Amino acid sequence: MKISNDTICAISTPHGTGGIAVARISGPDAIAITDKIWKGKPLENAPTHTAHLGEIIDTNGEVLDQGVATIFRSPKSYTTEDTVEISVHGSIWIQRELINTLVKAGARIAERGEFTQRAFAAGRFDLAEAEAVADLISSSSRAAHRIAMNQMRGSVSRRLETLRNSLIELASLLELELDFSEEDVEFASRDRLTALAIETKEEIQRLVATFNTGAAIKNGIPIAITGKTNAGKSSLLNALLGDDRAIVSDIHGTTRDIVEDTIEIGDYLVRFQDTAGLRHTDDEIERIGIDRSHKAAENARIVIFVADATDNDPLQPFDDFKDIDPKRIITVFNKTDLPGTSTPDGAIAISAKKGTGIDKLRTALKTKIEEIADNDNAEVLLTNARHAQALTMAATSIADFIQALNDGIPTDLAAQLLRETLHHLSTVTGTITTPEILQSIFTRFCIGK
Amino acid sequence: MKISNDTICAISTPHGTGGIAVARISGPDAIAITDKIWKGKPLENAPTHTAHLGEIIDTNGEVLDQGVATIFRSPKSYTTEDTVEISVHGSIWIQRELINTLVKAGARIAERGEFTQRAFAAGRFDLAEAEAVADLISSSSRAAHRIAMNQMRGSVSRRLETLRNSLIELASLLELELDFSEEDVEFASRDRLTALAIETKEEIQRLVATFNTGAAIKNGIPIAITGKTNAGKSSLLNALLGDDRAIVSDIHGTTRDIVEDTIEIGDYLVRFQDTAGLRHTDDEIERIGIDRSHKAAENARIVIFVADATDNDPLQPFDDFKDIDPKRIITVFNKTDLPGTSTPDGAIAISAKKGTGIDKLRTALKTKIEEIADNDNAEVLLTNARHAQALTMAATSIADFIQALNDGIPTDLAAQLLRETLHHLSTVTGTITTPEILQSIFTRFCIGK
Repeated sequence: MKISNDTICAISTPHGTGGIAVARISGPDAIAITDKIWKGKPLENAPTHTAHLGEIIDTNGEVLDQGVATIFRSPKSYTTEDTVEISVHGSIWIQRELINTLVKAGARIAERGEFTQRAFAAGRFDLAEAEAVADLISSSSRAAHRIAMNQMRGSVSRRLETLRNSLIELASLLELELDFSEEDVEFASRDRLTALAIETKEEIQRLVATFNTGAAIKNGIPIAITGKTNAGKSSLLNALLGDDRAIVSDIHGTTRDIVEDTIEIGDYLVRFQDTAGLRHTDDEIERIGIDRSHKAAENARIVIFVADATDNDPLQPFDDFKDIDPKRIITVFNKTDLPGTSTPDGAIAISAKKGTGIDKLRTALKTKIEEIADNDNAEVLLTNARHAQALTMAATSIADFIQALNDGIPTDLAAQLLRETLHHLSTVTGTITTPEILQSIFTRFCIGK
Repeated sequence: MKISNDTICAISTPHGTGGIAVARISGPDAIAITDKIWKGKPLENAPTHTAHLGEIIDTNGEVLDQGVATIFRSPKSYTTEDTVEISVHGSIWIQRELINTLVKAGARIAERGEFTQRAFAAGRFDLAEAEAVADLISSSSRAAHRIAMNQMRGSVSRRLETLRNSLIELASLLELELDFSEEDVEFASRDRLTALAIETKEEIQRLVATFNTGAAIKNGIPIAITGKTNAGKSSLLNALLGDDRAIVSDIHGTTRDIVEDTIEIGDYLVRFQDTAGLRHTDDEIERIGIDRSHKAAENARIVIFVADATDNDPLQPFDDFKDIDPKRIITVFNKTDLPGTSTPDGAIAISAKKGTGIDKLRTALKTKIEEIADNDNAEVLLTNARHAQALTMAATSIADFIQALNDGIPTDLAAQLLRETLHHLSTVTGTITTPEILQSIFTRFCIGK
C-alpha cells in the first residue's frame, strides 16, 4: 500500500453555495502551508484544538476572505496528522480559489477518501470501520445510520475478532495434534477440533445471512405493490408517498428530486417497486411486464397485494402469488368507500382515493418491517457486499477444512485451508489488503473525507 | 426592529451530502443547549476559540455522531453572541437529526440571514456591509468577489459617510444662515452652500452611475452575439463556451447545469445572450425575433457582430446597428478557413468551426471588458439595486434642495429637503431602517448565515 506523507487539501463540506464552507488540510506541512496564505497571528505555535480568526491572502496578494482556522495537532486529529480546518464564506468562487491558493502554497488536492485512508493507514480505523464512514455519510434512515454508526465503532470488527480467535484456537489444536500425532490424544482433540470448526463455520454463515437484511436496510427495503390493472396501485403509491414526501422535503428539501419512490416508515427506508397490473393476457409484450411484476414480488421483502373490492372475485389474481411466503404479503381491499363492498378478515380496507385506511396500512408495514429487521436477531448486520463476499469465501474454506478433517487429509494440508479462512476474514478488517482493494473502497468516498 | 435574544441554530454548510457539515448555534444558551446533547467534557467552562471532540446524543439517547464543537464566546463571534459550531459527518440524515435534537434541547431554527442580522443588530456590520455578505457568498467571478469583499469591508459605507459629512456641513451652513439671516453674511454663505450642495449632488449622481457597471459585473456582463442567419453565431458561442466550461466544471462541477451561457473572461463573468439571426423578412414572427435581437444588442454592454466572410457583402446587416456606439461592437469575420475569403481591418478573422481566431477574440473581449470596468474609474461600484434606488432618491432630494435655494424658498423649508436627502443615505447603511427593509434583505440570505 502506497503511503504518501505529503500535505493534502480539499473542501470537506457538501458541494455548492452555503453560509460557510470548510477546507481541510492534512499532512506534515498543514500548518506551515496555512501560515503562507494566512494574515493574522501565525499559526505555527498555536496549540492544538484552538480556533483563530484571520484573513486568507490569495495568489494575487488580495484578501480572498476572512476565515477561521482551527488547528488539530498530530496525533489528535482525524488523520492523526497535523490538520487545519479553514472555515470561509461558502461561495463557489471562494472555495475554488482557496483550494487553488493552498495548492500554490504547496498542498496537493486530496483524492476521494484520502483523509480516511490516512486515518486507516495510521491505525485509527480498521478497514471495516473506515468503510462505515462512507456508509454513515450516505445513510438516509435511522436504521441505516445506526448500523453504519455501530460498524464505524467496531461492531463488525469485534465480531470478526471473535471469529479470528476461534480460528487461532483451531490452529493451535491442529498444532497440538501434529505434536502428539502418534499418541491417543489425537481422537479427543480431533473431536473437539471438528466441533469447534463446525461452530465457527455456522457462526460465519449466520453473519453472511444477515447481509440480505442489512443490505435491504441500507438501500431501502424493497416493497412491491401488485394487483390487477386498475385496482388502484398508483393511487395507493401516491397516498403512501404523499405525506411523508412532504415532510421530508420540508426538512431538507434535497432528496425529493433524486429518489422518487422511497419513504421512511418508522426507522426504516423503504423502496417501492412499480409493477405492471396483473391480468391474463395473450399479448406478448404485456406478458413480459407481468412476468416482471412477479419477479419484483419475488425479490421484494414485502408484497402489498391490492384487490379491487368492487370486483366479483377480488382475490382471483392472488393465485399468481401462491408460491410466495404468505407472511411477506399484505392484502389491501381498495375502493371500500364505494357501496356494496366488503373486506375479508386479514385484509386491510382502504380507499386510496379518499386516503382512508392508509394509516392502518402504514402501521401494518411498520410491524412487518420490524419483523424483518428483528428476524435475524443479530446485533451485527452486514451491509457491505465486500464483507459478505469475503465471509462467504471464508465459510467455503472452513467447510473444506471440515471435509478435510473427515476425509483424514494430512494435518499440514488441512492447516492450509484454515490459513485461507483466516486470510478471507483478514481482508474485511484490512489486516491483509491490496492497493486494488483500497482503491475500490476509497474512490467511493466523498471528496474531502 | 424586532431583536430576538433566544438561541438559534441552523446547518451553515451547503445543502446536501459531504464529508462534513457544520451546525451553528448562537444566542445566550448556545453553550448550555449544546451541553445538553453533548457527551464529552462539558463545554460550559471551555474557553473561547477552543475545539472539543465529543459525541452527540440524539433525542432517543442514541449516539447520533461523533463531532467537534468549537466555542466562540460573546463578543468574539460572528453574531457577537455565544456561538457553538458543531462539525459532524455530512449525511443528510445526521444534519436533519442534529437540528431536530438541538430544537428539542431548546434552540429555534434560524431564519434566513438571521445570524448576519444579529451581527448587524449588534453593530458589528452596518446594513450595506451585511448585504455584501450575501453578495460575497453568491459571487462567481474574481471581480464580483472583489467588489463584494470591499463592500463587506466598508467601501460603500465609507463613501456614504463622506457624503453624510457633506450633508451635515450643509445643514450647519444653513443653520448659520438662519442665525445671521439679517446680516450680510448671508450671501457669502449662500454661495458656499450652493456650491457644496451641487458638489454633493454630483458626487451622489456619480455613485448612482456606477450601478450600471456594478450590476453588470455582479450578474455577468451581457454580451450579444448577433449577425445574419447562418453566419455561425451558435458555433461561435460553443467555441467560446467550450474550453472555459470544461475548466469550470473540472474545478467545481456544479454551476454547469444551472447557468448555461456564462463564462469567466479574465476576472469577469460574462453572460452571452442568444439572438435570432438577422435577415430582412416579411414574416411577422421572424420579425419579432429580429426585433428582440436588436433589443438584446442595445442592452448588451458588448456586441459581437458575426459576419459571414463568404458573403458578397458581409457587413450588410451591420447597418442595423448604426445607432449603437461602435466602441461597443467587436466585428468578427467567420468561415475564414474557406478559400477566397478576406477580413477587413478592424475585424477579427475566425473560424468558429476550426477554432481559429477564438483566442484573439477572447483577448479583444477581455480588453473591452476591462475598458468598461475601468471606465467609471471608481473605487466604489454600487452593485445593489436597493442602494442605487436610495441614492437616486437622495439625488432627487438634494436637486430639489438646490432648486429651493435658487428659488429663495425659506431656509427652514429647504432644511427639510436636506433632511430627506440624509434620510435616503441613511437607509443604505441602515442607520435608519424598517422591519420591511430588513425582512426583504435577509430573506435573500442562505439558511445558516
